[in-house]
Amino acid sequence: MRTAPRSQDLAHALRALAMDAVQQAASGHPGAPMGMAEMAVALWTRHLKHDPADPHWPDRDRFVLSNGHASMLLYGLLHLSGYALPMEQLRRFRQRGSLTPGHPEVDHTPGVETTTGPLGQGLANAVGMALAEKLLADRYNHDGHTVVDHRTWVFVGDGCLMEGLSQEAISLAGAWQLGKLTVLYDDNGISIDGPVRAWFADDTAARFRACGWSVIGPVDGHDVEAVDAALQQARRSVDRPTLVICRTTIGRGSPARAGTARAHGEPLGEAEIEATRAALGWTAAPFEIPPQIGAAWDQREQGAAAQAAWRVRWNDYRRDCPADADELERRLLGRLPEGFEIDWLRLLARTQQQGRTLASRKASQHTIAALAPRLPELLGGSADLTGSNLTDWPDCGAVRGGERGGRHINYGVREFGMAAVMNGLALHGGFIPFGGTFLTFSDYSRNAIRMAALMKRRVIHVFTHDSIGLGEDGPTHQPVEHAASLRLIPGLDVWRPGDEAETVAAWGHALMQADRPSALLLSRQNLPAQPRGPEQTAAIRRGAYVLSDRPQAVAVLIATGSELSLAMAAQQLLDQQGVPVRVVSMPSSTVFDRQDTAWRQAVLPPGPPRIAVEAGVTPPWAAYGCTAVLGLDRYGESAPGPELMQALGFTAAHLVELVRAEVARCPAGVPR
Amino acid sequence: MRTAPRSQDLAHALRALAMDAVQQAASGHPGAPMGMAEMAVALWTRHLKHDPADPHWPDRDRFVLSNGHASMLLYGLLHLSGYALPMEQLRRFRQRGSLTPGHPEVDHTPGVETTTGPLGQGLANAVGMALAEKLLADRYNHDGHTVVDHRTWVFVGDGCLMEGLSQEAISLAGAWQLGKLTVLYDDNGISIDGPVRAWFADDTAARFRACGWSVIGPVDGHDVEAVDAALQQARRSVDRPTLVICRTTIGRGSPARAGTARAHGEPLGEAEIEATRAALGWTAAPFEIPPQIGAAWDQREQGAAAQAAWRVRWNDYRRDCPADADELERRLLGRLPEGFEIDWLRLLARTQQQGRTLASRKASQHTIAALAPRLPELLGGSADLTGSNLTDWPDCGAVRGGERGGRHINYGVREFGMAAVMNGLALHGGFIPFGGTFLTFSDYSRNAIRMAALMKRRVIHVFTHDSIGLGEDGPTHQPVEHAASLRLIPGLDVWRPGDEAETVAAWGHALMQADRPSALLLSRQNLPAQPRGPEQTAAIRRGAYVLSDRPQAVAVLIATGSELSLAMAAQQLLDQQGVPVRVVSMPSSTVFDRQDTAWRQAVLPPGPPRIAVEAGVTPPWAAYGCTAVLGLDRYGESAPGPELMQALGFTAAHLVELVRAEVARCPAGVPR
Repeated sequence: MRTAPRSQDLAHALRALAMDAVQQAASGHPGAPMGMAEMAVALWTRHLKHDPADPHWPDRDRFVLSNGHASMLLYGLLHLSGYALPMEQLRRFRQRGSLTPGHPEVDHTPGVETTTGPLGQGLANAVGMALAEKLLADRYNHDGHTVVDHRTWVFVGDGCLMEGLSQEAISLAGAWQLGKLTVLYDDNGISIDGPVRAWFADDTAARFRACGWSVIGPVDGHDVEAVDAALQQARRSVDRPTLVICRTTIGRGSPARAGTARAHGEPLGEAEIEATRAALGWTAAPFEIPPQIGAAWDQREQGAAAQAAWRVRWNDYRRDCPADADELERRLLGRLPEGFEIDWLRLLARTQQQGRTLASRKASQHTIAALAPRLPELLGGSADLTGSNLTDWPDCGAVRGGERGGRHINYGVREFGMAAVMNGLALHGGFIPFGGTFLTFSDYSRNAIRMAALMKRRVIHVFTHDSIGLGEDGPTHQPVEHAASLRLIPGLDVWRPGDEAETVAAWGHALMQADRPSALLLSRQNLPAQPRGPEQTAAIRRGAYVLSDRPQAVAVLIATGSELSLAMAAQQLLDQQGVPVRVVSMPSSTVFDRQDTAWRQAVLPPGPPRIAVEAGVTPPWAAYGCTAVLGLDRYGESAPGPELMQALGFTAAHLVELVRAEVARCPAGVPR
Repeated sequence: MRTAPRSQDLAHALRALAMDAVQQAASGHPGAPMGMAEMAVALWTRHLKHDPADPHWPDRDRFVLSNGHASMLLYGLLHLSGYALPMEQLRRFRQRGSLTPGHPEVDHTPGVETTTGPLGQGLANAVGMALAEKLLADRYNHDGHTVVDHRTWVFVGDGCLMEGLSQEAISLAGAWQLGKLTVLYDDNGISIDGPVRAWFADDTAARFRACGWSVIGPVDGHDVEAVDAALQQARRSVDRPTLVICRTTIGRGSPARAGTARAHGEPLGEAEIEATRAALGWTAAPFEIPPQIGAAWDQREQGAAAQAAWRVRWNDYRRDCPADADELERRLLGRLPEGFEIDWLRLLARTQQQGRTLASRKASQHTIAALAPRLPELLGGSADLTGSNLTDWPDCGAVRGGERGGRHINYGVREFGMAAVMNGLALHGGFIPFGGTFLTFSDYSRNAIRMAALMKRRVIHVFTHDSIGLGEDGPTHQPVEHAASLRLIPGLDVWRPGDEAETVAAWGHALMQADRPSALLLSRQNLPAQPRGPEQTAAIRRGAYVLSDRPQAVAVLIATGSELSLAMAAQQLLDQQGVPVRVVSMPSSTVFDRQDTAWRQAVLPPGPPRIAVEAGVTPPWAAYGCTAVLGLDRYGESAPGPELMQALGFTAAHLVELVRAEVARCPAGVPR
């Protein structure tokens, strides 16, 4: 009969894997995994509910390693717990094509819940995941039926807590009373630049308490029993998220580097690894785990049992509440309701027929209101600009701590937090989150938008007040480079619709992209409806199409958003001058870029010169072969919108001039 | 003899101006100015040290309206205090060309210290200003000579405090022990979406205390005496910044709208303004100030006296410490030392001669080390990546609370805070701040970079790890779209130097741009030195130049940064194949864009096809006439850098193929 290994030895297994893998890669971060090893033992062997054989089991606890540079801790945990991550992959840490990249990547490694590395975002993702659990539990659990009941656990380091984003995340978690969220803080007092006290003197416990959190500790983060006890206590919290402060030593076990910044981001070196092995009493060879320790780590049996118990509950639920079971299942799979596309296309046709003059932000609100009733997964919100972004809809209710049933989130003035929480909602599953702010402030949330694109998650950003057309608020609020710069983020769809129909089309397209975030750039000011035949209406979703053609057109005018009507007006003036031009509406260049060559050439034929008009920076239009652009390569000004538009050259007359100059310079038919 | 008007009436003057100006503009935010009126009276008539006749007096107190939408409060204060802001300008609030834009803009309206509107940044700017004062006082005041001695005062609202950036700023202010920084919090419990308690439940006093601040209040923000007493107390703080919590009512005075979100962002309307006038007992016509009240507000006499007293001290200082006086004056004027340009050009020539192979981040560190001794205004720092960004230099010392003399700031993991604090340092004057992080995390600080460009301030961003070449850290850390997207920010210079000489050139150019921020994009990996003649070396500062030409070149290869050596290698291979090509190095397209047409055409002549190579997104190169680009329109991967570069196509052989295909498709000489 085998004696059970000590918890300490379980921790040493993680330490050994971390230092050996980093050494083998000659790159990586050994210090944090070695420092958090006991925290990980306490959580992963005693509390985390998961089924290594089925990383997608919907009622699993979520674990987020917010300090993603400690990736080897996570890979060690996944391997030892029994996920499909063989030792071979740990040996290939940070190598091309391995399942063990430098920072954890969701959908790449089984058991990784979110891609982390950019600090603070994992914590905010976790807040979104915990909120998702709470909202789904509120909605779908019924008396005698508990099918949604899991926790969210997060490891964070000093770095995450220095990031301002952490404040946005913890403030929201406190306000939402996310009792099932537990954060374990690896309080090792060291960041890359050295001992943190000179630049991070915060009383972190007091800060979290100030935000409505329950705080436990500091506990000895190297005492598995102490961490275990703290987690037990955390689980009893009802309406407060919990911070467990674990006092640890970075690089714990390394005689020469423990407790120093040198443990952070480079291999320990062969000699120091040998010394560490000796100090830990760890005799196994690199990448070898003694069988008893491996057995103690293996969570497959417990995981299967946990899921089996849930399956029983789920089957009862499916029997007693079939409609809810279907809906929840559909939502968790990320599938739109049967018939969604048809509903959307009907709405689009109806909208086109109505021909209303509306700001596209208002058109967006109408679209949301029309689609939301049949899309319970749609969860709106705004960073304290609800009445400006128009992200709410009738009877949407508000998400509030201690209340149930709301579908619109007041994120407060927290653009980055909103975006990162939305990523967490989307990662958890069951929701299509969307959130609004002014387009300029997409700068604040930019890296979270990028992360949604990198992670291929359906998150919809509603960015209103999309140009100098917003007027009086002035240059701080007037986007100039933002549309162009969002279009550069790989995997993000950017829409700038020109009227209500294009707005409906953009929303539908965004909702149907299950593996892609979208940004909708919307006007503050009214936009007239454009006439379209059914084929044109259908073509909006191709990103660009011919809105108004002329036989023997001698030039092509490409327009987006609020400048579409300007292009149409210019076309009319040019008609009078005997200069026939085609108007192409390009509400989404990113979607257009994915169309087949035939479509792209049909819309933008070789030959006639192309002129673009968009109230933003001009150079990117060269990529569409435009030789002239009516745009804006400077900051705006504070003035009434229409006056400003005119003063900065956005007039049909000016556009006509540009077109005529190009036509004169480059007659149609000359090959480009 | 006139009786002095009550403080209350001084406040009502601000209220009246705010509601009347917003009404006249039919746009703006009356609620915050009306709510903060008494706070403003207490500060501006009893504490703020300033000279309305000379807004540039160096030893003035700095006032920052972080909640910039309350701009009418500031315009009212400036007008009433006696700045060159006539009533005529207040009547033209938010109109084109007026001195009263929607949000306060520095250098546009006398007395405005920073451009605010994007929330949280004003607070962080103020932290930078207060740090600047402290560092200058430490350096230049001597026994018996106090020439730097002013305070920094900030108004913030709930919105600023919800932004995560506020946490970064207050944490730094606490760590730096900025005792002369006082923040007045307009605690009105209302944000745009309504009563904040549902989304902003923080105990703000506790949060600030947790960060080393002294907290006073809540006091009645409508009681001038109470606010005055709090400010008196704040002034006694030595090494803790102070938060004064002022409990106020938004839109105070408006019978129907006070205390509601409706007071926030729209005119009150004629009827409500009349009701407010009646309630306040304010009988003066719109834009009229009763003479007694105007006289009580006028601070010109006190301001002149304050400056006169300082001039006496300054003259003594100039007499006793002439070298320091000269240096301080030079620094405050933002002038580089005599001979700087010559020194720089010598360093450049020497560097070119040395021909070292170095990572450009290392080249940057050498440059800093070479230039810093003669540039005491240079103040470095890093967002906790000092050893990776290489922003420190020998004997630079560290900026620490309670210590003196350091010139390098450990900002902690606070990229946005770093950028916004640097803006504050630059706005204060006396410093050229630079700060480092990884290029990907420029996303976190993006709006502060934009604000530096909008405000035309010399702030230098050192962004290292500038491409997939960084290797193992993987796609979260590998910039792809960042170089291109920074280049879109109007007024920002972006440099991506290809070797040590170009790095030296970039640094010198950045330092010489007194009214422009710069971003230096630097490699983690080594870059070989390129050969250059003296004219070529001198031409680097033009942004792009011919690095290596061939007679009858049939194509032009444009390269930046680490891909420059790839272009040079491709040129050699093409030579062997009888395909002569020109290599253009373009370390800064933004600088190149400002060169005269002759230069631009000489570098990029019409005719031969152009092919660009840069490890980043490709579409922007169309603006330089490139018909093919070796770039990267997808996210990177975790793998060793050289392997990854090769796997993703960055090889000389691949570049050769591209060039040959373009030459075949588009023979030189055909007009473009």
